[in-house]
Amino acid sequence: MSFELTENFYGKSSVRVTKVTRLPGRHELHEYEVDIRLSGGFEACYAAGDNTMVLPTDTMKNTVYALAAQHEIASPEAFAVVLCDHFLKHELVPNCQTIWAYVKAGRWQRLDTPAGNHPHAFVSGGAEKRTCCGTQTRGAAMTLEAGLNDLVVLKTTDSAFRDFIRDQYTTLPDSDDRIFATTINADWRYADSAGDFNATYERVRAALIDTFAGHKSLSVQQTLQAMGEAVLTACPSITEISIRLPNQHRIPVNLQPLGLQNKNEIFVTTSEPYGNIGGTISRKR
Amino acid sequence: MSFELTENFYGKSSVRVTKVTRLPGRHELHEYEVDIRLSGGFEACYAAGDNTMVLPTDTMKNTVYALAAQHEIASPEAFAVVLCDHFLKHELVPNCQTIWAYVKAGRWQRLDTPAGNHPHAFVSGGAEKRTCCGTQTRGAAMTLEAGLNDLVVLKTTDSAFRDFIRDQYTTLPDSDDRIFATTINADWRYADSAGDFNATYERVRAALIDTFAGHKSLSVQQTLQAMGEAVLTACPSITEISIRLPNQHRIPVNLQPLGLQNKNEIFVTTSEPYGNIGGTISRKR
Amino acid sequence: MSFELTENFYGKSSVRVTKVTRLPGRHELHEYEVDIRLSGGFEACYAAGDNTMVLPTDTMKNTVYALAAQHEIASPEAFAVVLCDHFLKHELVPNCQTIWAYVKAGRWQRLDTPAGNHPHAFVSGGAEKRTCCGTQTRGAAMTLEAGLNDLVVLKTTDSAFRDFIRDQYTTLPDSDDRIFATTINADWRYADSAGDFNATYERVRAALIDTFAGHKSLSVQQTLQAMGEAVLTACPSITEISIRLPNQHRIPVNLQPLGLQNKNEIFVTTSEPYGNIGGTISRKR
Amino acid sequence: MSFELTENFYGKSSVRVTKVTRLPGRHELHEYEVDIRLSGGFEACYAAGDNTMVLPTDTMKNTVYALAAQHEIASPEAFAVVLCDHFLKHELVPNCQTIWAYVKAGRWQRLDTPAGNHPHAFVSGGAEKRTCCGTQTRGAAMTLEAGLNDLVVLKTTDSAFRDFIRDQYTTLPDSDDRIFATTINADWRYADSAGDFNATYERVRAALIDTFAGHKSLSVQQTLQAMGEAVLTACPSITEISIRLPNQHRIPVNLQPLGLQNKNEIFVTTSEPYGNIGGTISRKR
Repeated sequence: MSFELTENFYGKSSVRVTKVTRLPGRHELHEYEVDIRLSGGFEACYAAGDNTMVLPTDTMKNTVYALAAQHEIASPEAFAVVLCDHFLKHELVPNCQTIWAYVKAGRWQRLDTPAGNHPHAFVSGGAEKRTCCGTQTRGAAMTLEAGLNDLVVLKTTDSAFRDFIRDQYTTLPDSDDRIFATTINADWRYADSAGDFNATYERVRAALIDTFAGHKSLSVQQTLQAMGEAVLTACPSITEISIRLPNQHRIPVNLQPLGLQNKNEIFVTTSEPYGNIGGTISRKR
Repeated sequence: MSFELTENFYGKSSVRVTKVTRLPGRHELHEYEVDIRLSGGFEACYAAGDNTMVLPTDTMKNTVYALAAQHEIASPEAFAVVLCDHFLKHELVPNCQTIWAYVKAGRWQRLDTPAGNHPHAFVSGGAEKRTCCGTQTRGAAMTLEAGLNDLVVLKTTDSAFRDFIRDQYTTLPDSDDRIFATTINADWRYADSAGDFNATYERVRAALIDTFAGHKSLSVQQTLQAMGEAVLTACPSITEISIRLPNQHRIPVNLQPLGLQNKNEIFVTTSEPYGNIGGTISRKR
Repeated sequence: MSFELTENFYGKSSVRVTKVTRLPGRHELHEYEVDIRLSGGFEACYAAGDNTMVLPTDTMKNTVYALAAQHEIASPEAFAVVLCDHFLKHELVPNCQTIWAYVKAGRWQRLDTPAGNHPHAFVSGGAEKRTCCGTQTRGAAMTLEAGLNDLVVLKTTDSAFRDFIRDQYTTLPDSDDRIFATTINADWRYADSAGDFNATYERVRAALIDTFAGHKSLSVQQTLQAMGEAVLTACPSITEISIRLPNQHRIPVNLQPLGLQNKNEIFVTTSEPYGNIGGTISRKR
Repeated sequence: MSFELTENFYGKSSVRVTKVTRLPGRHELHEYEVDIRLSGGFEACYAAGDNTMVLPTDTMKNTVYALAAQHEIASPEAFAVVLCDHFLKHELVPNCQTIWAYVKAGRWQRLDTPAGNHPHAFVSGGAEKRTCCGTQTRGAAMTLEAGLNDLVVLKTTDSAFRDFIRDQYTTLPDSDDRIFATTINADWRYADSAGDFNATYERVRAALIDTFAGHKSLSVQQTLQAMGEAVLTACPSITEISIRLPNQHRIPVNLQPLGLQNKNEIFVTTSEPYGNIGGTISRKR
């Protein structure tokens, strides 16, 4: 029998770095969690433990700190570009063919004060994560994707689901007015690796949330497409967007066995199982 | 050998219930996760499997839904009081001596719109949890405690730690200007089981955050006491408050081995180990 | 208004340390996660940021490593005793009145090989955690408690629950043969701070599991008491044991609406809500 | 502007089902967590909320229970095949072009007793997950992949890493004898959708663990390739295997500042950042 290594990658994951920029009257805070992966001509390491073409993952970690110190990294996208550049142009690592840099950020919010935003105090903005993934293969252009993940939203009305297929295992009743709760997960592709990414992110975020809130939903699928179209309409620099909307079910409790009537008022939240709806919306060529 | 049951409790945990109140022009949303525990004369069940004095935990779950339907439950405190009342006065469960009702709530925030708060769309407010624990023993007054937990805050300056004990294992340098990040966990006791608990919660929250942000900190301990005193000052209905402030360390990266200088700018976030500071502040009698 | 600090503690949490002892032909592996808390005369730090009586939590972390290097730490109990001793006798920290050392360990299992146990390769034993908590106040004897937590067990028969209280909200049917699944959480107290703690732990573990498996259960409560009595019977050095058995519900699926019959064969696992049963079994005096 | 839906899927996730088969003298236990996804001609639902071609995800959940009742599901693979068959042949859902069924199982272990394996009591086997993913597009053959995930292993010796690239950011020293701990994640592809999958799984598992334990490792990459080759050698029905080995770092503690020497004995476990090594080993054609 004979075998071959048909794919490979190695790197450092979950490198967390905080950068504070002390401007007069105001501190900027940027916190990122970085994953780096290299792929390419590393077969000798896998086959024989020859490490002479391997930059240690510990060095990748140090490099994240060093590059954060030397560059402005005001957005995940800016940092991903810096990281891709560094590793792909690294003279000592010629065997790297593809670099993959993934940058994730939480949402720190400046503390509101009567005098406006606080100059140096922040409150965590919750589970929402902003992400960026830069990928570059030697000799090709960089691919830059970004995402908004884990943003939980809920509306108490303007959502229906009816007139679906009924088979022998269907017990779900039609609903004309149900709670719609979901965790927004969206990933989009930029046409270009330059731009005002922070402004774009806020436009994407507003388009997603506002469309979710305002849409008269006949299905999660329909709302998903409306959300995607709203993003593409608001952001010309985005070429396509993939959205995943896992249900955060609020199921009406059957109160009849308890001698009570549920006037669409009492619901139980269940974590599992959950419906999971996905779609990719692209510009028509 | 002979043994005895010296303590007992049983109940239902993580009962999640959502209540939507459809007011004209505006929906109210209340979501709680409830734990119920009963304790008392249940020895025969433990000793011999005699269930005749046992109300099933499944019934406790149903009861949470039923009481949510029949009562206004505009705060965790209000719901905890309803739950304690129900179980302690339950004619069929005379063996229950002590009831313990714990109610936890996330922080749903109405979506901001140009026209003001959205009438029925909400965004999850993150990891912060509001809690309430009502405890009542037959023949005694109810004890009502509440809490704010898992609120992550960070400030980039106005925090020092110096002039501490140095022993043979101490390597930490003095610091005059460090990042102070922590997860606020506060639990307080009410003098009374009535009051406008929602207004009190917002006052507690503001006192904790504003004091954290504004305090010139010489130690986490000192900031903790200032935060507790601010709460007691702002809220006469609170008799004492326990605060726990686990560090969310941001450790300056030593860039010297990388040929760079760290101007108090680049930090690594570590999840573990972490410093953990606690204290209880009470009114002087 | 005037306030006072009525309780205080500070320390380091989640200090993880691994010790490898390289014996001829066999390596010993001990991995612990340690929490240290000091309490006592630290009011000046809370009131005024005076750190002169404060040993930094960073030093506590270093101390965990230093003590692990200098002592045999073959059990969580042994390490807890070393830690309590060190901090309470520390000449530079006279303000510490009470030391609390909590040591947690996972369950590494030596790899089985045809030739017996592997000399240096281990497989993680799952979620089960062994814990020990030593507490000592200046001038008093040490209290030593230990625990077994997060051990998930399931039996498919020999469990019933019937003849319980039925009120207007009860919908649960009697069951003569249900699945019994739970997460064993047990914490016990030793009469003495010396002993062969590793052997005792294995006896406790076997008593808990074997009793769970063999008991003809009329209620979770009854099985809990039987498990506690089995431990006290097997381990004379244990004076009392508290057990908590949260249900890991397997609920029979109602297949009738699907045109099928469920012959006590198909169940759905739910994470929440869950029944939660606790009790403390003590030796009769 | 004009947009189009270029990808779509919807389904139900985390459907948990337990099946108990009550054989004389011995109960079989099978527990699975199932994800179902359908993809195909669902554009009208996304574009216009037309649900007439949509089978509800709630029905998918019910279907998991119904199929578990009607079929022998002695392996994740067997269940995945049943699920793919059902949905792709469903006469009422002709718009489904591709079905994706993912089945995950924990590792229940029969309780050891002096008399052998217990007939109906089980202990949870920890974090290890066995997975299977069946994918089928109308008119094509089913693709069947399986996996072993989250199995944590550690060896205290026979691991080195040296003679790697050193750049200006490299601080890692060479090591000739380090701890090697990792979480095994392996996913493989079967040549065929029939076979004794339970026996194959045990052979894969043994090949992975035994190779990890016995390999004289010069790098994680080298051990990874050896593990993959061992699986392909042991299991002719597997055509290729992808392995990912995230480091579970045990980093030697520098005890010199504490006045002590670390004789390769004391290590700190860190969760992040972590090295992450991946590779795919295929049979040479």
